[in-house]
Amino acid sequence: MNSTHIKPKKTVEVTFRVRYAETDQMGIVHHASYIVWLEEGRSQWMRENGRSYAEFEANGLRLAVSELNIRYKQAACYDQHVTVRCHLDEIHSRQMQFGYEVIDPITGDIFTTGYSKHICLDIHNKVARIPTEWRAMWSQAAAST
Amino acid sequence: MNSTHIKPKKTVEVTFRVRYAETDQMGIVHHASYIVWLEEGRSQWMRENGRSYAEFEANGLRLAVSELNIRYKQAACYDQHVTVRCHLDEIHSRQMQFGYEVIDPITGDIFTTGYSKHICLDIHNKVARIPTEWRAMWSQAAAST
Amino acid sequence: MNSTHIKPKKTVEVTFRVRYAETDQMGIVHHASYIVWLEEGRSQWMRENGRSYAEFEANGLRLAVSELNIRYKQAACYDQHVTVRCHLDEIHSRQMQFGYEVIDPITGDIFTTGYSKHICLDIHNKVARIPTEWRAMWSQAAAST
Amino acid sequence: MNSTHIKPKKTVEVTFRVRYAETDQMGIVHHASYIVWLEEGRSQWMRENGRSYAEFEANGLRLAVSELNIRYKQAACYDQHVTVRCHLDEIHSRQMQFGYEVIDPITGDIFTTGYSKHICLDIHNKVARIPTEWRAMWSQAAAST
Repeated sequence: MNSTHIKPKKTVEVTFRVRYAETDQMGIVHHASYIVWLEEGRSQWMRENGRSYAEFEANGLRLAVSELNIRYKQAACYDQHVTVRCHLDEIHSRQMQFGYEVIDPITGDIFTTGYSKHICLDIHNKVARIPTEWRAMWSQAAAST
Repeated sequence: MNSTHIKPKKTVEVTFRVRYAETDQMGIVHHASYIVWLEEGRSQWMRENGRSYAEFEANGLRLAVSELNIRYKQAACYDQHVTVRCHLDEIHSRQMQFGYEVIDPITGDIFTTGYSKHICLDIHNKVARIPTEWRAMWSQAAAST
Repeated sequence: MNSTHIKPKKTVEVTFRVRYAETDQMGIVHHASYIVWLEEGRSQWMRENGRSYAEFEANGLRLAVSELNIRYKQAACYDQHVTVRCHLDEIHSRQMQFGYEVIDPITGDIFTTGYSKHICLDIHNKVARIPTEWRAMWSQAAAST
Repeated sequence: MNSTHIKPKKTVEVTFRVRYAETDQMGIVHHASYIVWLEEGRSQWMRENGRSYAEFEANGLRLAVSELNIRYKQAACYDQHVTVRCHLDEIHSRQMQFGYEVIDPITGDIFTTGYSKHICLDIHNKVARIPTEWRAMWSQAAAST
């Protein structure tokens, strides 16, 4: 692991356009689409904080979602840009919690806010410890400003 | 509306099989797939309590999701049956809250529990009153045993 | 394998309702949703012809999609029932082709027709032979009337 | 419409990362996910050729998919970048056909190739003419090199 040169970041952003398939017949983004965006925010957070989630899984571990909460404030629409802001709220030996905001990068308006709790599992779906070096790396990011 | 002969039901169930597309590379159902299942539970609840959500939207109204909370207890897998149990927790003039359990219909094991809050909007996305007859019909179901 | 008592079926049907999440802002079912339905037709075809696709994968094999063709004739809408009809067109030592129709079970109207080609892969994603007993079982279904 | 300063492009590219939700239990991208990517390629093609598809729909028209064909050559995986290349094959008074390649932007390997046919519909789902100025704009792009 060679991530010592990475500057830890508390909050990471990723921006993309709303896809047509993400809308529903209300003419706005379907509420389940945001869940996929939060996950993409989480992926980006890990990439910018040292190592990707793909590398985490390559160790035979995964971070399963144990709870999800999301509040919908304003609807996003096809074609517009959305920015997912993700930060690490808490990290424990076997669990983590991320917080999110999905915003309009132009107006700053908030589409949704939410959090997700995760539990570390091994490939047999048994609860497992987050490896020490990963936990240290992520704790540093959570503590940064 | 001819729903007087419908016996109101507090809790409604719908059962279907897990689709392959609903899994992810963890080998289990992706956490966003459950959100779609809850919605299907809600649709079934309305069908069995007098009128479908399609009819509700035909009035120029929609029930947008304003909050979603879901706890993941056990993972569902491809091909197995899952049962979504949905009940109406609360109904107000402009808002509703549904509660859910997704269970294994064979073992009774709980996969997820959750709730969703909804706000009634008109086609211009303005907050609107739930029409009196719909509210009466749904209140009766919420109060039933 | 104890499938000798299964009567092989050339064509198998599965019926379900359109989910809200499967629509898009055109007010109709998004074209990618049908792909998931075809897959569900394929799953049902296998279940009714002896053994499930889950059992096939339990052998360390998978049937990856190598080509997909779908023609959209009429749009399906939220809440209505759709029936997927699936039959096995061809089976070779390492490849299979399924054919499909998605219809309205009430009017008989055709929503889409299509086919999918599959190649048998092992867990290392190398092309593999379809095991003899599976191929025999499926060939019998393809040849039935 | 002020698109005269836009240089028409025969082929347009858009690059993004594979999302975790786009994988399935084979450990690779689910075959339906590519359909959504092709659509995103199409959206990008329009954006870079003068006006967005959102603007097209704002005219009370839509381009419904009438046929889709896709060949899967190699599997894409979570976290990697994929590039969708889209070009306009043909444009007629009421129909269009787009061609696609989904490639690995680093190695140039091809994941999938495909085409989609579209028919112009009005808001009542009646076949309609593509407006003259849109057709002229798009024909110019198709003819460019």
